[in-house]
Amino acid sequence: MIQVTVWNEFRHEKTDETVQAIYPNGIHEQIASFLGEDQFEVRTATLDEEEHGLTEEVLNETDVLIWWGHMAHDEVADDIVERVQNRVLQGMGLIVLHSGHFSKIFKKLMGTSCDLKWREDGRHTRVWNVNPSHPIAEGVSEYFELEQEEMYGEHFDVPAPDELIFVSWFPGGEVFRSGMTYRRGNGKIFYFQPGHETYPSYYSKDVQRVIKNGIHWCAPTENHYPSYGHFESLEK
Amino acid sequence: MIQVTVWNEFRHEKTDETVQAIYPNGIHEQIASFLGEDQFEVRTATLDEEEHGLTEEVLNETDVLIWWGHMAHDEVADDIVERVQNRVLQGMGLIVLHSGHFSKIFKKLMGTSCDLKWREDGRHTRVWNVNPSHPIAEGVSEYFELEQEEMYGEHFDVPAPDELIFVSWFPGGEVFRSGMTYRRGNGKIFYFQPGHETYPSYYSKDVQRVIKNGIHWCAPTENHYPSYGHFESLEK
Amino acid sequence: MIQVTVWNEFRHEKTDETVQAIYPNGIHEQIASFLGEDQFEVRTATLDEEEHGLTEEVLNETDVLIWWGHMAHDEVADDIVERVQNRVLQGMGLIVLHSGHFSKIFKKLMGTSCDLKWREDGRHTRVWNVNPSHPIAEGVSEYFELEQEEMYGEHFDVPAPDELIFVSWFPGGEVFRSGMTYRRGNGKIFYFQPGHETYPSYYSKDVQRVIKNGIHWCAPTENHYPSYGHFESLEK
Amino acid sequence: MIQVTVWNEFRHEKTDETVQAIYPNGIHEQIASFLGEDQFEVRTATLDEEEHGLTEEVLNETDVLIWWGHMAHDEVADDIVERVQNRVLQGMGLIVLHSGHFSKIFKKLMGTSCDLKWREDGRHTRVWNVNPSHPIAEGVSEYFELEQEEMYGEHFDVPAPDELIFVSWFPGGEVFRSGMTYRRGNGKIFYFQPGHETYPSYYSKDVQRVIKNGIHWCAPTENHYPSYGHFESLEK
Repeated sequence: MIQVTVWNEFRHEKTDETVQAIYPNGIHEQIASFLGEDQFEVRTATLDEEEHGLTEEVLNETDVLIWWGHMAHDEVADDIVERVQNRVLQGMGLIVLHSGHFSKIFKKLMGTSCDLKWREDGRHTRVWNVNPSHPIAEGVSEYFELEQEEMYGEHFDVPAPDELIFVSWFPGGEVFRSGMTYRRGNGKIFYFQPGHETYPSYYSKDVQRVIKNGIHWCAPTENHYPSYGHFESLEK
Repeated sequence: MIQVTVWNEFRHEKTDETVQAIYPNGIHEQIASFLGEDQFEVRTATLDEEEHGLTEEVLNETDVLIWWGHMAHDEVADDIVERVQNRVLQGMGLIVLHSGHFSKIFKKLMGTSCDLKWREDGRHTRVWNVNPSHPIAEGVSEYFELEQEEMYGEHFDVPAPDELIFVSWFPGGEVFRSGMTYRRGNGKIFYFQPGHETYPSYYSKDVQRVIKNGIHWCAPTENHYPSYGHFESLEK
Repeated sequence: MIQVTVWNEFRHEKTDETVQAIYPNGIHEQIASFLGEDQFEVRTATLDEEEHGLTEEVLNETDVLIWWGHMAHDEVADDIVERVQNRVLQGMGLIVLHSGHFSKIFKKLMGTSCDLKWREDGRHTRVWNVNPSHPIAEGVSEYFELEQEEMYGEHFDVPAPDELIFVSWFPGGEVFRSGMTYRRGNGKIFYFQPGHETYPSYYSKDVQRVIKNGIHWCAPTENHYPSYGHFESLEK
Repeated sequence: MIQVTVWNEFRHEKTDETVQAIYPNGIHEQIASFLGEDQFEVRTATLDEEEHGLTEEVLNETDVLIWWGHMAHDEVADDIVERVQNRVLQGMGLIVLHSGHFSKIFKKLMGTSCDLKWREDGRHTRVWNVNPSHPIAEGVSEYFELEQEEMYGEHFDVPAPDELIFVSWFPGGEVFRSGMTYRRGNGKIFYFQPGHETYPSYYSKDVQRVIKNGIHWCAPTENHYPSYGHFESLEK
């Protein structure tokens, strides 16, 4: 069974009534809850726990880490970020959600500013599938809509993805590459745009389906990982 | 000087008054005209000429071929299509415009149906640059608008491009990968969406700039092309 | 259970004693035999059967088609090639082996000459994994060797792959991109180099493992395939 | 005229007689010298200069930075690395040579370990061109050889490149993706393998040609760089 750790900053939910109304137990608990319906072994971790809940032990038992953060990116300790990066390079999957685009871990893995345009206007979005045979889009229609989502607009300053899966449309006139995969070391990474804290995106069946598919896609396989360093000749 | 041949089906212009009003001498002449302002050596060719104007001689003297077609894709002779494909594989650049997505030559080079969604509604479009340092986007703002353009929507059934440069937004709710590059053999290919026959897109300075940049990008370089077939061992 | 059809030209085996000694029942039967050990539903088809064994019915019941051909590429009927291409675009997986690089179906899906360098010298090869977390490389070491394999050398005239998985080393001094994936329409394609008819490559456990992994990777998913054509506006 | 800064660690040349014999004035001076024959405005900078010779002023006047480092990667100050990264994201080109694969700046831009296999055995290498129409390969044959070069072998732990241009063959049985491009922010990056300090690779006309081509490819264009942050709606 795939072992998933859902990491959430868990700050907005403690101070903002709108967020609290939508996610009374925190975004992480809502994500854990819909994953639990499936065949995952799920735990959660949050910023204010010891070592942000991401001890060596927890990470070693994590196949796929889901990351949601926003207002407190800077409070994530650098050594924990490095620990997460190392685990990704060793093979742990990583799903970065929404405002996690600006997290230390995502920026470290991308090497770019990860900046973008944004607007919180309470309007809808339409997420188009541009890679219809990709397993992350399995069971999802050629597009799906969210009644309310924060606008994220191009240019999104990330490397060209290995695979582009979703492109989002916003009524204000913007587009956004909203579902993208990357490989770093032995780890697979999936960035997915929906999930602003003041809108109920993680209750959407489509969003849930994509995240579940993403976990399956990101999970480590039984690969033999390479050796590095000095290497004796194989030929005479 | 880069030698450009602008190929146009040149049928709508002969029968449709709206098109005639916009492109009295044909789409090819308008394209040739704005290219002529720059440093290209330009000629045109059209469907109803002998060999569609694409003789061996013309193609051998063409560095970059621009292709506009729509209602008469099927009338392009298969042997001419093969001739063009061979020249692309040898190194000739190819810029496929708008409804050229359904041309025999583009389908042959892509290997897919090249199908898409479309709607002729006279509304505007906004072309977003998602690859801001690409030479094809040189001098173009982070987005540009066209007052009227046909909607082309995803899914666009083409291979994942080597480089994605533009993504278009349409007011009806659609997105479209509208500027993409491909390499096939020694040839470079650029697909660019704008240019419906009933709207004046080829008078847009932005569209003109992108096409000019595309020509520079697609033009053959002084590369040594590979040898194929039986090969003697280089080592004892 | 994934339904696999193993297609083989089945000509060398009828006329060449060396090939007969290695593959007495044909390359297709050897491939079917090692697949059968796993959880696939396998059938075979060959050139000299009616419709090359690739009737509409057979193709409709095929999730993944494996293709081996060499001396008789030209005898494959164009309408059957078109039928296979259509099924790939609809979602059928395709694994092209070794000299299948020059098959009509592969060239049609790639859009290029698919040419390369070759030499039949009875020497060994070493297949390096350059994409260690890819599911197609699952269970395979960082490299594997074949005691004898035909040299295939760069330049291999195919489009840049979506994913590069293996690069082969040859003692004569050549390299070759020997494991590559492509998506075309809704279908997934995997090209894999080993399998010259006069060497026992399809008895190699490594080659077998890669082909089995390839089948899993190429198999269609439960995706909703897109609609095309005229499209009504989704927004007012 | 393109402004190039050649950065070299410049340590081996001060202590190792073999290196000194080949590069009496340092690797940077040899690179500067062959560039000078062309149309570049060249300066050099080295580790032991103030701010490693990479002041804000120098970087602001640099279009393309060439980086050679090996034994003293750790002595490069983190704030200078960050300054270089920022300039790359703003549009400065970066060419990373040989053992620069392990430099702080390259690892920061890649997000991976950048590890590989190596062996210093004084044997030859053959660099194969797998992207024959790429401008970085202009004027270079389908392969070129170096009489002596350090073996670098796969797996090379970097992200899948935007473009793969060269793959190297080594007589000991290894392959290596030895020429690759990446875009990060507005900057273009080219990694190129040749250049071990004890072999005269930077005297090779082929290596020189590739580096010159790389400079042209990496040089910034007159692009309009994007805006980020809060963005007003473009549509009513």
